[in-house]
Amino acid sequence: MEKPLILIVNDDGFEAKGLDAMVTVAKSLGEVVVVVPDRTRSGMGHAITMNEPLRLINYKNEDGIIYYRTNGTPVDCVKLGEKVVLRDRKIDLVLSGINHGSNSSVSLIYSGTMAAAIEATFDNIPAVGLSLLDYSPNADFTAAIHFGRPIVEQVLKNGLPPYTCLNVNIPKVPVEEIKGVKVTRQCHGVWHEDLEERTDPFGRKYYWLTGCLDRHELAEDTCEWALQNHYVSVQPVQFDLTAHQYIPNLKYLEQ
Amino acid sequence: MEKPLILIVNDDGFEAKGLDAMVTVAKSLGEVVVVVPDRTRSGMGHAITMNEPLRLINYKNEDGIIYYRTNGTPVDCVKLGEKVVLRDRKIDLVLSGINHGSNSSVSLIYSGTMAAAIEATFDNIPAVGLSLLDYSPNADFTAAIHFGRPIVEQVLKNGLPPYTCLNVNIPKVPVEEIKGVKVTRQCHGVWHEDLEERTDPFGRKYYWLTGCLDRHELAEDTCEWALQNHYVSVQPVQFDLTAHQYIPNLKYLEQ
Repeated sequence: MEKPLILIVNDDGFEAKGLDAMVTVAKSLGEVVVVVPDRTRSGMGHAITMNEPLRLINYKNEDGIIYYRTNGTPVDCVKLGEKVVLRDRKIDLVLSGINHGSNSSVSLIYSGTMAAAIEATFDNIPAVGLSLLDYSPNADFTAAIHFGRPIVEQVLKNGLPPYTCLNVNIPKVPVEEIKGVKVTRQCHGVWHEDLEERTDPFGRKYYWLTGCLDRHELAEDTCEWALQNHYVSVQPVQFDLTAHQYIPNLKYLEQ
Repeated sequence: MEKPLILIVNDDGFEAKGLDAMVTVAKSLGEVVVVVPDRTRSGMGHAITMNEPLRLINYKNEDGIIYYRTNGTPVDCVKLGEKVVLRDRKIDLVLSGINHGSNSSVSLIYSGTMAAAIEATFDNIPAVGLSLLDYSPNADFTAAIHFGRPIVEQVLKNGLPPYTCLNVNIPKVPVEEIKGVKVTRQCHGVWHEDLEERTDPFGRKYYWLTGCLDRHELAEDTCEWALQNHYVSVQPVQFDLTAHQYIPNLKYLEQ
């Protein structure tokens, strides 16, 4: 049987420690190709590059893995992987991450990591986004690899429901303190934000976006409950944004 | 009674004709403040600016309307509007657009226009994204204004369901050929894409992303059906991406 073809992407860029961790997860499971941004592209959501051309550089070949980097966004990485690097080949799995930092609750919407996984589902390619709840560049990915790998193996073996990817978040605690894996739904939460005002050396104002996840629900079936209770959160994700339940309420707008 | 406070944002930037059209829709309905990008930021999805500071320039005051532009993304425009420009004031409505080009089907996911509207719903501010199916910088916004305005008036009067915004798309036909308004769901569709390969003057390859909406369903309750049949499409949009229906299928992953 042919080895599965796995495309790895991320949003933390080609130098991220989380990329090495994802390669560790994937390399014994199939043929691996890496296409990642040439710098940090966190918080890019589903952005694509429309107004400038994309570059694609083969910057490394190691252990049979081919590595590319691009000036594009995480979503562009999936497009370049599918349409240029692996053109005419069937990709069996897209892995995104391992992200430095949480993609639970509403962070999912801002996440370049998860947007890349969602992009893969448009062509019905199974995809898994892995995120560790530690923003540090030197984060310890041991638990993420330990719990991420069997989930990825199961997805390779069983596939995923149609047009669906997984949002997997791993708590920032040692392996032995993680209690298990929970399948969850996205909790309702918002970022509590501020825009810190400063003045540049030329007397002009500028603003830094700061914030933290706030005002979230903690029902037992949610991602935040699982993570706060030291479970790995596994969430099926899709891309229909319709608020179906409210269609009847709005029928009065029809003319 | 106090006039409602309306924040206008867009993704086509401060020079877009669609911005003037949105001001035309809003100016008699309330107090209007504009915060828009300083250049075209189409296809930015839910991107935010985390790695560089944001600038905010008051570039115009006209007819009682204050106009700001920023180096940020469409979503940043909402954050700057809420947290800096209108700090401590209650915003009654966010209007995003009028966009040059469709945001129907999966384009909704890539859209900076709609991401800005969704951003407003995080703080439960009613929001309406208006998009005209014409990418031209000189697009004729007559029909978009004609059909957009009564929808915006209804939203001001009746509000919207909690944490919900509207994705309104207007077909590219004269007013008199538009048959009416349909409340729709997001149709399943994908972009058929290509990455056009070129060579720069220095012999290095680069790629342009090109594409068109393809392989979409045309059920009668969808946005694409409405638009192709010359109806305005009005779609309630929310931000829970969980594939709830597949949670039971994935329970086997729990440990």
